[in-house]
Amino acid sequence: MSFAGEALGHFIANSRWEDMPATLRHAGRRSILNAIGCGLGVARDPAVTTALAVMRPFSGAAEATVLGQAVKLDPMAASFVNAIACNLLDYDDTHLRTVIHPTAPVAPALLALAEQRGLSGAAVLHAFLLGGEVECRIGNAVSPGHYARGWHITSTCGALGAAAGCAKLLGLSAEQSWHAIGIAASQAGGLVENLPSAAKNVGVGNAPRHGILAALLAQQGYRAGAAAIEGPLGFARAMGDVPVTEEITEGLGERWEIARNTFKPYPAGIVFHAVIDACLALRRETPPEAIAEVTVAGDALLLARGDRPVNNERDARVSIHHSAALGLVRGHAGVADFEMPAVTDPALAAFRAKVRARLDESLPRGAATVTLRLVDGRELRRTVTDPIGSEANPMSDAALEAKFRDNCAIGGFTARADAAIEALWALDSAPDVTRLMELCA
Amino acid sequence: MSFAGEALGHFIANSRWEDMPATLRHAGRRSILNAIGCGLGVARDPAVTTALAVMRPFSGAAEATVLGQAVKLDPMAASFVNAIACNLLDYDDTHLRTVIHPTAPVAPALLALAEQRGLSGAAVLHAFLLGGEVECRIGNAVSPGHYARGWHITSTCGALGAAAGCAKLLGLSAEQSWHAIGIAASQAGGLVENLPSAAKNVGVGNAPRHGILAALLAQQGYRAGAAAIEGPLGFARAMGDVPVTEEITEGLGERWEIARNTFKPYPAGIVFHAVIDACLALRRETPPEAIAEVTVAGDALLLARGDRPVNNERDARVSIHHSAALGLVRGHAGVADFEMPAVTDPALAAFRAKVRARLDESLPRGAATVTLRLVDGRELRRTVTDPIGSEANPMSDAALEAKFRDNCAIGGFTARADAAIEALWALDSAPDVTRLMELCA
Repeated sequence: MSFAGEALGHFIANSRWEDMPATLRHAGRRSILNAIGCGLGVARDPAVTTALAVMRPFSGAAEATVLGQAVKLDPMAASFVNAIACNLLDYDDTHLRTVIHPTAPVAPALLALAEQRGLSGAAVLHAFLLGGEVECRIGNAVSPGHYARGWHITSTCGALGAAAGCAKLLGLSAEQSWHAIGIAASQAGGLVENLPSAAKNVGVGNAPRHGILAALLAQQGYRAGAAAIEGPLGFARAMGDVPVTEEITEGLGERWEIARNTFKPYPAGIVFHAVIDACLALRRETPPEAIAEVTVAGDALLLARGDRPVNNERDARVSIHHSAALGLVRGHAGVADFEMPAVTDPALAAFRAKVRARLDESLPRGAATVTLRLVDGRELRRTVTDPIGSEANPMSDAALEAKFRDNCAIGGFTARADAAIEALWALDSAPDVTRLMELCA
Repeated sequence: MSFAGEALGHFIANSRWEDMPATLRHAGRRSILNAIGCGLGVARDPAVTTALAVMRPFSGAAEATVLGQAVKLDPMAASFVNAIACNLLDYDDTHLRTVIHPTAPVAPALLALAEQRGLSGAAVLHAFLLGGEVECRIGNAVSPGHYARGWHITSTCGALGAAAGCAKLLGLSAEQSWHAIGIAASQAGGLVENLPSAAKNVGVGNAPRHGILAALLAQQGYRAGAAAIEGPLGFARAMGDVPVTEEITEGLGERWEIARNTFKPYPAGIVFHAVIDACLALRRETPPEAIAEVTVAGDALLLARGDRPVNNERDARVSIHHSAALGLVRGHAGVADFEMPAVTDPALAAFRAKVRARLDESLPRGAATVTLRLVDGRELRRTVTDPIGSEANPMSDAALEAKFRDNCAIGGFTARADAAIEALWALDSAPDVTRLMELCA
């Protein structure tokens, strides 16, 4: 096939649920469970309630659940708010090669459309696997130039993935699916310059909203340029460099990028996870008051991102000092541990002052060595190269369930957490998503 | 002020209607009149009716008119369809330096919001002038690299202009207006690769829709990056080159780019207008059957764009041969003259075969020399350097009215054309836009 979009269109239209391996289906369930938990956790965050309040008058028939809210909206409006919620704290998931958060921009579109149209859980899961795959493969084809140029890759590739998933869910032909992705390419947006602001949310929220619109327009005959992805004035080049289109097409349906999705155990920048893991382990060996000084060694990226003063929540999420203090003083690093009361907690602030960062070029990306000098002169040391949540050391299903329950507790939904978990693990066999979405309302 | 968006925010919030010069107000009225006429002309086009049908279930309260349609939609959904209609044939208007079609992405957002909220015609016109100014100035700052890189500048800068206009209409503060534009920057999209397809419409339609959302979110406290336009990972650099920010800020409120908007007398590519003008003039000197051969001379752009076979409507709109044939055989070049019956008209097809194109590097961009060799051996020649509709030779108000009536006739709205024209010229003094929008329904 001559065009990347053409190959993707055939991949989408010809894919059969029966051919999806069990491990892949499970990876999909894990992604959706994790994302919904993150969305429920921030249901009362002003960024989410503002998005809901603004979008609500611009919604058609209220047929799709908004996570953790009492109201429903139309599928486009609901998926806008839900994608914002799932990704709000960047606590969701990561396709490590591209740094895409794959689920937030895709799954909300599918759940909303399925709820509206009475489609099955298996149809949602199948569409999610295809949409997430298209998203990550296009991300691979344009990385790293795309992000480096200023594109928030979760928002941009997310819109194309959402269109692909919606195309499957709506039963579009191969050609319609191709054009749906191309139409989404003309809607993709979202800037890295805006990441430290609420404008980031708008790009993420638009991704599923645009995906739904692209698929519905393609279904009604709207077309896109044949080379909308890789053409000389298309998505990839306009937004970065010459794409490596083999990344999109090679091994399609055999090698699954979405199966490599990873889940975050802590709501901190991903390079800080090794620091937290090492400190949690060391805490079992010594109480914080016995520690005189902490040295955290890591690669240049860790130091560039994380060796700075901590004045607010955003700083805390990308701080070597705060990460180490949480692990060694509190022994946990959940959502509340990165909020303002933790930032201003005198015990944590005093401990952060004991933490030094040091470059160790021998450590790989994402690894850290934490060395404690104790008051009695002893030294304790721990190196973590594959933190929990990495590809080599994935979160267990039990850990994902615990994270889901934690998020439900933060959002105030503890009573329904177990039932929701059960419904999510059983998504494949649900004749529709009504019960699941009721539990998530 | 340190940031481009900050300067624009102050410009928007501090601008007073009383300070708008009369000539500028008139330029605004001409822009809106011209765009609405174009929108009414294509009300029955499948591209428009499909957009309406797809968007309709995703509309909140039906409070905003859709041009030439029996239904209303919410302001976001209505402006999506209306922007598509106004720009569908690229028959609307052109800011020549940037090739932005300024009105379609901006005015529909303002008319829809004003209709919903009972705001005055003067408020719409004021907001349009500010939004169009922001749109064209940001366009200047990123041109020509932005379009050359693959960005459909009408869609991208249109979203920022729409946000700016909506910010004024909603009475946002300087800071909120700044952030509204920044939020729109994270929503901007639309690819040149998709221009020969319906996917183009989606980018244009999204511009006002995104502008409304950006302004409403900013009103509720959403913020953007301070340097969302010119920052290292912001709009301008992600989408092209280093911006010339002086183009945004210099002489703001004194020199008006939106006053330089031009209007198209023919639904053909703008470089073909000189060919049509020259041929229309020559037709007064000779009947077509007396012509043996036609030579059209122009610059390299004219030849690159227009010296190709004509197989469909799209070809016809960018054809030297078809443009010359229309002027010399039919004596007019309206919407129907570029549709399939004209493409396949044997008289036009035969005449197109008599037309030769020739490079004349001495002619400026947009000019053409047409030379007729007659059957009796005589030669007739006409050079047009400033075709009707250019900055140096603008369409008169009467010509704009005639174009509006033609468009109304095509769309089937002849009975209301004169009343609509009257309402548009009197827009400044209308206490609300109810009557105008009723006439445009």
